[in-house]
Amino acid sequence: MNAQSSIRPAAPVIAIVGATGAVGAELIACLEQRDVPLSALRLLASPRSAGQVVPFRGADLTIEALNDDSFEGVDIAFFSAGATISRRFAPLAVAAGARVIDNSSAFRMDEAVPLVVPEANAAALADHAGLIANPNCVAAIATVALAPLQQRWSISRLSLTTYQSASGAGAIAMEELRQGTAAALADTPFEPQVFPHPYAFNLFSHNAEIDPETGYNGEELKVIAETRRILGQPKLPIGVTCVRVPVLRAHSMAVTIRFEDHITPAQIRDCLAAAPGVRIVDDQATNHFPMPSEASGEDDVLVGRIRTDLGDPSGRSIAMFLSGDQLRKGAALNAVQIAEALLAVPA
Amino acid sequence: MNAQSSIRPAAPVIAIVGATGAVGAELIACLEQRDVPLSALRLLASPRSAGQVVPFRGADLTIEALNDDSFEGVDIAFFSAGATISRRFAPLAVAAGARVIDNSSAFRMDEAVPLVVPEANAAALADHAGLIANPNCVAAIATVALAPLQQRWSISRLSLTTYQSASGAGAIAMEELRQGTAAALADTPFEPQVFPHPYAFNLFSHNAEIDPETGYNGEELKVIAETRRILGQPKLPIGVTCVRVPVLRAHSMAVTIRFEDHITPAQIRDCLAAAPGVRIVDDQATNHFPMPSEASGEDDVLVGRIRTDLGDPSGRSIAMFLSGDQLRKGAALNAVQIAEALLAVPA
Repeated sequence: MNAQSSIRPAAPVIAIVGATGAVGAELIACLEQRDVPLSALRLLASPRSAGQVVPFRGADLTIEALNDDSFEGVDIAFFSAGATISRRFAPLAVAAGARVIDNSSAFRMDEAVPLVVPEANAAALADHAGLIANPNCVAAIATVALAPLQQRWSISRLSLTTYQSASGAGAIAMEELRQGTAAALADTPFEPQVFPHPYAFNLFSHNAEIDPETGYNGEELKVIAETRRILGQPKLPIGVTCVRVPVLRAHSMAVTIRFEDHITPAQIRDCLAAAPGVRIVDDQATNHFPMPSEASGEDDVLVGRIRTDLGDPSGRSIAMFLSGDQLRKGAALNAVQIAEALLAVPA
Repeated sequence: MNAQSSIRPAAPVIAIVGATGAVGAELIACLEQRDVPLSALRLLASPRSAGQVVPFRGADLTIEALNDDSFEGVDIAFFSAGATISRRFAPLAVAAGARVIDNSSAFRMDEAVPLVVPEANAAALADHAGLIANPNCVAAIATVALAPLQQRWSISRLSLTTYQSASGAGAIAMEELRQGTAAALADTPFEPQVFPHPYAFNLFSHNAEIDPETGYNGEELKVIAETRRILGQPKLPIGVTCVRVPVLRAHSMAVTIRFEDHITPAQIRDCLAAAPGVRIVDDQATNHFPMPSEASGEDDVLVGRIRTDLGDPSGRSIAMFLSGDQLRKGAALNAVQIAEALLAVPA
């Protein structure tokens, strides 16, 4: 525990960088809904958003333009404005005495920066030096369900195939999905601006750049690296396919887990039923399993379709299906939970 | 080769049972587009559709009500009206001398009935006794890409995770997706009739009944059994997760193939580039890979994202992503190709 983390006011001053984005709006909602104690909330964004007014706990907060002096007096700063902004301003915030919870990919693979999903590796928070990284949305949602299994049994391989929502690319992508779909239904032309492909009633491989050596895209490589870090298994073999589907704000994924031993679906179900942040939705009789429509707006990661993978002749693999809100557990909620964990640690 | 398959007129009389459905309409389109020789086309459907007029090659064809005597003089009958209709009427058609190509699941696992994807196992057609089964759409699309690999190398395991379109549940499901989505965009209530779950901007586990023993649903078990049959590998371990996504008429799937030996992505690409019915769409530089929007209305199965699976430490697994038109290669086109193969065999 370092000097920085011992500054711990009962009601901190909290700042949000990127307050007008999809994750920014969800951070404000999470702080409000969870009654996070704070003495002031500063909403920071680009100069073109400055002056906008946002309601919060009955008051009207005015968006301020982010600048080098924005962090004076700030105790906790959430960053959600992309890696470039984080690289430039997060060190200034730390220097001003704030603890920074960064939702960008800027520091996630920096060994000096803990990468934290509180349900999975809260202990990693003990070692921060002012900066904590919030994981990629797929890694965050997956590890809520994977960490309890990995803590109880030994995972030897993982496979993740995703069904990712528009929200991962921001509010503008959600709007593009809506507008493009309305145009498709009306049979009128629509030119996508955010994505390189039509999105209405379509899906496409995640548009992150492809690594020519592996053929994996940047999103898939993030998921692999971050999942390994959060689970504390730096060499775990993980196969990932990331696909964007026409869903607004919850990610789903088909997950196959190879264990060292034979674990039954019932053992998995029992373990996850007791796990924080997980809700089992696995009703075979009524065909009711995790869906984005039920995960959206929820804090829990929904887990179902738990069964032995018939593709592994050893019988040691379990298949399951998850849905989790990309804006909440995949981003804002996880960041707020990190802040709550920081605030809960006795000074 | 039996007596039946030697009846081979140059211009057969063709019948379509279920002519008003989504697959029926696509069968008519395929016969027209492919210039399949025929002397007459009889369109059969339920009594409530009788009397409707359908244009075909410049003429107007009138839908007739299906009855026990519908198959007199018919040489080839396509069935696409569900397993119950096929079980009742396909034997009558065969008895009347027709060769039946059945798109339902009724006879697919009957050892006496060949289950055929012409690109994969055309030789199986030699053994028919009047009835040929057209596979499940996922199995048909997958095996177009898998059979050439399996014929060249040895496949030891498969994993398929699907992104299935509305069309698999018929024209009524496509309409439900459109109407439900329009309602969601307008923020008005919509009660789904076809599916048990909301479909707009949502996805859900395939709604086929779950087998309590394995936890797999009926669709997944069909894909396993039929893929094994078409590939001629009755015990191949196959893991499948079938998911319905809000896409209108093309199925996509993430496929992982474990080979007995090390096969490189370049070898896979070369093999599939030469395979009939496959089009490689695998441009890493522009992030252009198989998508339903480009597979829809096309005959070829699009294959891309070909790479070594990082989840298999042996390095012997290849991951790839496919899209294929559910109504064409997944149903009508495959059936018409079977008819073409039957007509091409010398009498």
